[in-house]
Amino acid sequence: MPKGARNCLPGGGPIVLTTDFGLEDGYVGVMKGVILGISPRAQIVDLSHQVRPQDVPGAAFLLWTSYRYFPAGSIHLVVVDPGVGGTRRAIAVQTPAATFVAPDNGVLSWVLQDHGLVAPEPGRWPIAGVTLVTAVELTNSRYWRPEVSATFHGRDVFAPVAAHLSLGVPLADFGRPADELYLLPTPVPLLRRGEVVGRVIHVDHFGNLITNLRPADLSPLQPVELEVRGEVVRGLRRFYAEAEGLGALVGSAGLVEIALTGGSAAKALGAGVGDEVVARRGRFTG
Amino acid sequence: MPKGARNCLPGGGPIVLTTDFGLEDGYVGVMKGVILGISPRAQIVDLSHQVRPQDVPGAAFLLWTSYRYFPAGSIHLVVVDPGVGGTRRAIAVQTPAATFVAPDNGVLSWVLQDHGLVAPEPGRWPIAGVTLVTAVELTNSRYWRPEVSATFHGRDVFAPVAAHLSLGVPLADFGRPADELYLLPTPVPLLRRGEVVGRVIHVDHFGNLITNLRPADLSPLQPVELEVRGEVVRGLRRFYAEAEGLGALVGSAGLVEIALTGGSAAKALGAGVGDEVVARRGRFTG
Amino acid sequence: MPKGARNCLPGGGPIVLTTDFGLEDGYVGVMKGVILGISPRAQIVDLSHQVRPQDVPGAAFLLWTSYRYFPAGSIHLVVVDPGVGGTRRAIAVQTPAATFVAPDNGVLSWVLQDHGLVAPEPGRWPIAGVTLVTAVELTNSRYWRPEVSATFHGRDVFAPVAAHLSLGVPLADFGRPADELYLLPTPVPLLRRGEVVGRVIHVDHFGNLITNLRPADLSPLQPVELEVRGEVVRGLRRFYAEAEGLGALVGSAGLVEIALTGGSAAKALGAGVGDEVVARRGRFTG
Repeated sequence: MPKGARNCLPGGGPIVLTTDFGLEDGYVGVMKGVILGISPRAQIVDLSHQVRPQDVPGAAFLLWTSYRYFPAGSIHLVVVDPGVGGTRRAIAVQTPAATFVAPDNGVLSWVLQDHGLVAPEPGRWPIAGVTLVTAVELTNSRYWRPEVSATFHGRDVFAPVAAHLSLGVPLADFGRPADELYLLPTPVPLLRRGEVVGRVIHVDHFGNLITNLRPADLSPLQPVELEVRGEVVRGLRRFYAEAEGLGALVGSAGLVEIALTGGSAAKALGAGVGDEVVARRGRFTG
Repeated sequence: MPKGARNCLPGGGPIVLTTDFGLEDGYVGVMKGVILGISPRAQIVDLSHQVRPQDVPGAAFLLWTSYRYFPAGSIHLVVVDPGVGGTRRAIAVQTPAATFVAPDNGVLSWVLQDHGLVAPEPGRWPIAGVTLVTAVELTNSRYWRPEVSATFHGRDVFAPVAAHLSLGVPLADFGRPADELYLLPTPVPLLRRGEVVGRVIHVDHFGNLITNLRPADLSPLQPVELEVRGEVVRGLRRFYAEAEGLGALVGSAGLVEIALTGGSAAKALGAGVGDEVVARRGRFTG
Repeated sequence: MPKGARNCLPGGGPIVLTTDFGLEDGYVGVMKGVILGISPRAQIVDLSHQVRPQDVPGAAFLLWTSYRYFPAGSIHLVVVDPGVGGTRRAIAVQTPAATFVAPDNGVLSWVLQDHGLVAPEPGRWPIAGVTLVTAVELTNSRYWRPEVSATFHGRDVFAPVAAHLSLGVPLADFGRPADELYLLPTPVPLLRRGEVVGRVIHVDHFGNLITNLRPADLSPLQPVELEVRGEVVRGLRRFYAEAEGLGALVGSAGLVEIALTGGSAAKALGAGVGDEVVARRGRFTG
């Protein structure tokens, strides 16, 4: 094990951290300390540590909106882990885009769906038929910290595994092949009497309501109108400040979102994650 | 284009990020991913991502308090961009201190004032007469991401431009020369019947009320007293804990601020950005 | 003074920052700019900037939970400094684990206790008898910024000292030996009529109530029960999700904590730092 080897130019990309740890405690910093103790030249990037506590679906969505923008060979270390210390497995999953180190609790579901792994319901699903995805269960304690707590595997298991990955340790060394992965279904819009019923799946920092509706869901409904919490917006803007007031547009993740020019749509509508967003053919042209 | 070149010692300094993106979404992390995909050895530093949403003047002030403390050759990537996707231009501005990549919306106004660019009112002002400042409009799409969204130029335009700058691409390659820049006036204290009327321009994390008054504004008024929201403080302290209670002192940005020892002046006074701070000759010695 | 020397492989570990500056202002970024201006290849890691304003004991605890997870040779830059500009000294303290740069206000007390320095009451205590701990008072202005403000020694004194340490400047060069250090007592559980009375010393991001009780404090009390704000929990869980509801367990810092599965114990109990947590032999088996 090349512990502590100096790698001025690590083979892979950065180690990208996503957790629900917040920034007020030392939890995130400690994971970075563990990484740098093993891989002193690792580049570490924060994706977010403000995932809502234990919000596995939220983290899965966040990761999906972001992972494709990191260099090939990036190592995503994802620790949203309400089951830490119990029977949930720890995994590392390699795709052509990146390697992901995470608890096996569905937090990779959105990413894996991009690679053809779709879960009709929550549970363990085989990955045998899926090319380009390789997974191991993290069972080789040689790559963990010598003492493993029952409450902080981010520090004791996931961070050291990510650090060793950044040094070039091959995936297969970290444990036995995983033939199944725990997956969550990603929320799909429903058809209901000619309407397409989506949902708010994320509220961003600006109060934009990001839905699970894709532009293709709306194209049969032109001119489209969208209803959320009793308010109706007509048509799609091209960019935020194109008009005043509430509007809908295709946001940076390729999903339809409801925005309020110069303000927070979430506050103005009292809307949040889970609220229905109904798309229908408008009675008036937008 | 030296895309992906390895630069163990980039010629310039770090890439310094200032945005209003907050830290809960992946927006900041994604910009870092884009940068590292182009300039794998770039050093990236966060100045702040907690600028209030779309608060261009606030970001302009923050940048001004900070930019001089970064090494020469630093690249400041500033994305507070309510007009994204519309007609506002994107610019890169080079000064002896640093290069700034930003929307052309006034967010560089405080910095540019240090270089002699003063705007009497908001608008586009010529920079022809100003030595040591060079500006281009970002028009060369070769340095952008292949697909440019209408909602996230931080990811698609500004981050890749900053990354290429860090690899040594010359400023002139990024687009046509910009002869005018959009500038905002920086708030200047007013004279009123022998008083100097300043304003709170920033409330910091400690609740200190940072004003646009400079020590030179107060020197003709000795012994000085300052009034804010009906409370009067007399004289200037040298440091925060010099005395109990409310006091005024010259803060780390060289501006007069109102502070409360062991507490938040903003909370104690119910004060915020825009409130008047009136300096006058005191009737009693401080 | 090797100012600006390029150190692709600095001798030491990363520079680790702990402050109460928050992230909305430029204070943290400015310190990083100063560091990189002196030590361009320094690795900088944030431990936390969300220490409560001026909460020296809180920062001392945070540092203690974290410092041992960073590589040997790390430089901890700790700026929680209500006395900035006054008579409090500035110090650098070297231990086998790390070097600490901080105001001499007790913020290193928990760390120094690990090295045998125990303070019965707040004040200056001699360190002569303590092996493996070396301390200097930062008196050599050669390693400071040329102008030193009275309000921001993080920028003007501590950051440049840490940067020069990362370049290999020996501790003794930074000032005169410090024979005494200001220390705070760390809170010790009390014995009271067969009970062990601890306190909540930290509430983490998840609302877990971290106490100053160690497992050894509870072992004579089996089967143990813990009372906090009128609620009693029995026995110790091994991990968070072992059972529903409120429970106690040994957390990642090796201290007993009260947690609520899937929620915040702090919110559920209305509990916070300073609240008593009473351990006693349970009347029922856990």
